[in-house]
Amino acid sequence: MSLASQSFAEKVEPREGAGNEGVKRFKAPYLIYFGDIELTGYAKTGLGLIEWRRNLCIGQYRTPQCSIDSGLPDMTIEEAVQAGVGSFVIGVAPAGGYIPDRWLQDLVKAARAGLDIISGMHARLTDFPEIVEAALASGARLFDVRTPPADLPLGTGAKRTGKRLLTVGTDCAVGKKYTALAIEKEMQARRWKADFRATGQTGVMIAGAGFAIDCVVADFLSGAAELISPAADDDHWDVIEGQGALSHPSFAGVSLGLLHGSQPDALVLCHDPTRVYNLGTERKQPYPLHSLQETIEANLLMARRVNPDARFVGMSVNTSQLPLSEKPALFERLSAETGLPVIDPIKDGAKLIVDRIEKEFLL
Amino acid sequence: MSLASQSFAEKVEPREGAGNEGVKRFKAPYLIYFGDIELTGYAKTGLGLIEWRRNLCIGQYRTPQCSIDSGLPDMTIEEAVQAGVGSFVIGVAPAGGYIPDRWLQDLVKAARAGLDIISGMHARLTDFPEIVEAALASGARLFDVRTPPADLPLGTGAKRTGKRLLTVGTDCAVGKKYTALAIEKEMQARRWKADFRATGQTGVMIAGAGFAIDCVVADFLSGAAELISPAADDDHWDVIEGQGALSHPSFAGVSLGLLHGSQPDALVLCHDPTRVYNLGTERKQPYPLHSLQETIEANLLMARRVNPDARFVGMSVNTSQLPLSEKPALFERLSAETGLPVIDPIKDGAKLIVDRIEKEFLL
Repeated sequence: MSLASQSFAEKVEPREGAGNEGVKRFKAPYLIYFGDIELTGYAKTGLGLIEWRRNLCIGQYRTPQCSIDSGLPDMTIEEAVQAGVGSFVIGVAPAGGYIPDRWLQDLVKAARAGLDIISGMHARLTDFPEIVEAALASGARLFDVRTPPADLPLGTGAKRTGKRLLTVGTDCAVGKKYTALAIEKEMQARRWKADFRATGQTGVMIAGAGFAIDCVVADFLSGAAELISPAADDDHWDVIEGQGALSHPSFAGVSLGLLHGSQPDALVLCHDPTRVYNLGTERKQPYPLHSLQETIEANLLMARRVNPDARFVGMSVNTSQLPLSEKPALFERLSAETGLPVIDPIKDGAKLIVDRIEKEFLL
Repeated sequence: MSLASQSFAEKVEPREGAGNEGVKRFKAPYLIYFGDIELTGYAKTGLGLIEWRRNLCIGQYRTPQCSIDSGLPDMTIEEAVQAGVGSFVIGVAPAGGYIPDRWLQDLVKAARAGLDIISGMHARLTDFPEIVEAALASGARLFDVRTPPADLPLGTGAKRTGKRLLTVGTDCAVGKKYTALAIEKEMQARRWKADFRATGQTGVMIAGAGFAIDCVVADFLSGAAELISPAADDDHWDVIEGQGALSHPSFAGVSLGLLHGSQPDALVLCHDPTRVYNLGTERKQPYPLHSLQETIEANLLMARRVNPDARFVGMSVNTSQLPLSEKPALFERLSAETGLPVIDPIKDGAKLIVDRIEKEFLL
């Protein structure tokens, strides 16, 4: 960052500390911004936030062209201020991650009204002088979820107190975030101390703190992961959202840095049984998915460098592309193959996995 | 980077393309700047550049306080311009990597005289308006070796033509750069097509192009590595400088991204037999070095994902901390243990390893 932009950014970005503990948490409740988006696929961030933190979301803001309806009450910015909204959350990610000019006036208006702005886009809020000026005038804070803290530490590998679970996968985009959230939900339902720890944009919005780990400078990968799940009570579980896959030729470095920094006691294997090649490799050079056994072995080999007791406690299957009738036989086969409880986190929740954790770690 | 600084930087930084092929090469010959440094340890960059590219370095620039003497003729900036120097290379890295105010006047003077400035420091040349102004006025270019190109691609894992060798290690700072340079030298002596591909600051200065890979945003690690060793003639060898170690809890993510992106045909194992713990872990939580066999297995497991034929072709031992008398017995033992030719690259060069490559790949 240049000196010129730094002076700007420091005034409006929450810099002190960095982990989910240290960082300033987003101010609830939220107004979710859908702009003029017409495709649900571009609204995943906002819809995911509403699904997992419905109680924190009290309104949606849409232009007349927008064809998304999350079911939240429509609100103007004035109404949101009246209703006590703390943050204006950009709930959409158009292709490229850029902020279209036509949204700029809405963002400026929200910032001027004193709402914090939370963005997961590639373009940074602090790169728009109009938004920065409005925020400086009102005292609103600007959160760029894809901009990591400036003062990340190097990883040390030093053992931290508390328990950690990391979701890993045979590929990208197989349900690692969803699985972690389902496990947090089940643990909290049992009144365990448990926190979802986010490592991607949508996850960070749901967690209400953090940053996208794949945006970190490579040298600080494991240090960032250590910061995301700080030392905690011995009976506290951090449930950490995994990223990528050790076998993915594009993203394995991120996966390994996150695995080392997380020092997981427990690992959960996430998988989409209809996936044939690693996502994104199909066109140039298809990489056939590694087998479950190869995935388990590679992850254990690497995890045990930082935690000799690391073990798998379950498997989570993304069944969205699968005929319902095939599920029972498939799950039986996968469970026999891996020796692990197998869940469909969307349809069945994470009971079976948390049962296994209870057996392995609490009894 | 902010919009404000971008407009500055784009004028003086070589942005088009990024790999060692695509990027603008540094302009030789070089004037090496040692400032007022008193400790040889801080002058490693300049001394390494002189050791490996003596023919490109025609002078040194020192203040009266400086106690380093590289043996090059002392030159003022005026004399350097007269002598046809192309680039002013900052050959020192003081603690913290910052540019002290007292050096600023020298850098401004060099830039004003039209010399390109090459820096491997953390602080960026483009963050100093005085340097930028001087460069803009004279047409000098500013190279910040720790600032990767802005438009790095994601890794694809797609197979490239040409042969690749990567030096890996049991730890950081065991001689991976030196070993790669010794192998390049031996290959070129045999009139093979071979290029050293740099991934760290000093290496980049020696290669005369590139960027430090640990400064890349994590998502682009393997993409950066793919760019560093682009497709080449079938009989061309890229000899790639490794970084970190798969077993190092601070840096393994970088090592894996580099391993995947390099798609090595040949791997060389670098090792310091006196090292007990991974460098930097001694104080907080000592990580005992992985065994040679563990290191070989982990690297092959990961390398074969992107190149099923990857194999080790040699071992390189850093004997700087070792009594000379112990060397023969040790090398015999290491060779028996690994089945690999073992070299001391500083004392013996890389003949034995290139012999093995010739046998495995050319005959």
